[in-house]
Amino acid sequence: MLTIKLHARIVQGRLCRLGGAASYNTAMNMQASPPTFLDMLRTSEQQNQSMLCVGLDPEPTRFPGKLKGNSNKIYDFCAAIVDATADLVISFKPQIAYFAAHRAEGQLERLMEHMRRAAPNVPIILDAKRGDIGATAEQYAIEAFERYGADAVTLSPFMGFDSVEPYLKHAGKGAFLLCRTSNPGGDDLQNQRFASVEGQPLLYEHVARLAQGPWNLNGQLGLVVGATYPAEIDRVRTVAPTLPLLIPGVGAQGGDAVATVRAGWRPNAPIIVSSSRAILYASGDDDFAEAARTEAVKTRDVLQAARGAL
Amino acid sequence: MLTIKLHARIVQGRLCRLGGAASYNTAMNMQASPPTFLDMLRTSEQQNQSMLCVGLDPEPTRFPGKLKGNSNKIYDFCAAIVDATADLVISFKPQIAYFAAHRAEGQLERLMEHMRRAAPNVPIILDAKRGDIGATAEQYAIEAFERYGADAVTLSPFMGFDSVEPYLKHAGKGAFLLCRTSNPGGDDLQNQRFASVEGQPLLYEHVARLAQGPWNLNGQLGLVVGATYPAEIDRVRTVAPTLPLLIPGVGAQGGDAVATVRAGWRPNAPIIVSSSRAILYASGDDDFAEAARTEAVKTRDVLQAARGAL
Repeated sequence: MLTIKLHARIVQGRLCRLGGAASYNTAMNMQASPPTFLDMLRTSEQQNQSMLCVGLDPEPTRFPGKLKGNSNKIYDFCAAIVDATADLVISFKPQIAYFAAHRAEGQLERLMEHMRRAAPNVPIILDAKRGDIGATAEQYAIEAFERYGADAVTLSPFMGFDSVEPYLKHAGKGAFLLCRTSNPGGDDLQNQRFASVEGQPLLYEHVARLAQGPWNLNGQLGLVVGATYPAEIDRVRTVAPTLPLLIPGVGAQGGDAVATVRAGWRPNAPIIVSSSRAILYASGDDDFAEAARTEAVKTRDVLQAARGAL
Repeated sequence: MLTIKLHARIVQGRLCRLGGAASYNTAMNMQASPPTFLDMLRTSEQQNQSMLCVGLDPEPTRFPGKLKGNSNKIYDFCAAIVDATADLVISFKPQIAYFAAHRAEGQLERLMEHMRRAAPNVPIILDAKRGDIGATAEQYAIEAFERYGADAVTLSPFMGFDSVEPYLKHAGKGAFLLCRTSNPGGDDLQNQRFASVEGQPLLYEHVARLAQGPWNLNGQLGLVVGATYPAEIDRVRTVAPTLPLLIPGVGAQGGDAVATVRAGWRPNAPIIVSSSRAILYASGDDDFAEAARTEAVKTRDVLQAARGAL
């Protein structure tokens, strides 16, 4: 009986991720809930023994071999990367801007479907950094979770809780708030101290507190923290001990893997360490998928080893 | 000779806005530059005697008459509103989320073309509130300015100057930074005081200072300030005396038109007062375009009268 229930749960989870068409009504009427973003994250972390997230930032001008310069090949390029790394990652993270600039929304939809088929247990974070409120934020949530079927999304907290809440209404979906980013301009606002808030936190600490506490109504929130500042990941961890952290900046953007894992990873608080260009463009030739796999294995293993050393 | 030059300038401006296809090379090779976003803003303000911006936030469930619920009619609905108000506005502001949620990017492209034809002197602000950096921000800039041909875009400043600079490389285009928004959650970050910056400004004042000063390399920046806080528009004006202000929140969201104009408008610093739902959904019947026009005339005239009273 337990086996049947578990099976139903998995089947339903996959069906739900594939979209709720009428023919799936039987599955939808069953009692069990689909896996949440956090469930999926735990599964993929275990199954693939990985904290590595492959960021899908397709730039046709950097495409290898015969794909080079062809924006109609965005799907083909990304799908090949997905196939080559599906058993190595905790998550995939397509960056929507690279699709939007090339009128490639259709290719992104196909890629999302492909990821769900090729890696059904690997959650997909749509990197969109949306930041709007009310009815408009609801539209963006529909775009991310219904149109594209993403399991989580990245958001900007600049407009406050109103710009986060509409996403939380989508049960089980995740939302990562920009907190401390690793670009030079990250200091312009995020690294300034608030006089008017108790304890005088820096802006990014204030965001982390809100996300760990009052904003996190159903445990759906996470934070984006750049890998180039391990000391700041450490400060975020102190304020937000249980939130999953999405950490871009390993690989092409630098960042010390060992220091990152040491500062961010906790047994019950996963980190998702994202690398894009170093993996996508590991080779400029037709062996690009193989080269991407080699690079992904290397990065995953460095991260896992750093965790072992804790 | 002057006449010919002026004509060439106008022709080139319109051709450039329609996209730089190969057949336009002759025009492109002429000396004159296309009108900048600010040029267009001054022209439309004068020509239409207006500070009113119609926000295009199409919600099929709210569509009137026989369009109701039909997401394939987004273009038709918006084009009818544009035709009914083209001679009344300083700007149009399509909100991209409403298109993205309905797979309506193609309809948005057609709408942008229609606005350029129907109202060639009215600048279009693509309300996207993008907030990313480096290569990703470049992709979003391509989306806004090249794919959609927008004259300006809205941006989130949370990631700092790196998230603004890529847009400034598009000569003559405008960029409005979120500064002080009128939603309740606007207080969560924007209304907190910075201890670490000279003069201890609030976050939104700090953004206004950066946009008026060091970030405004080529005079392309403006600010988004909510209409529901005239006292805060006043503070922004003190810090940013010459920037154009995009002020949503008049109409359906409340906001006192006279206080808004008094606080924000200056002879050399335009304000763009945006109203969406009150105009779009002024009637739930087939006379919706006529009703939108009536509402737009009313709002425009209230704003102009407030200016006259200064």
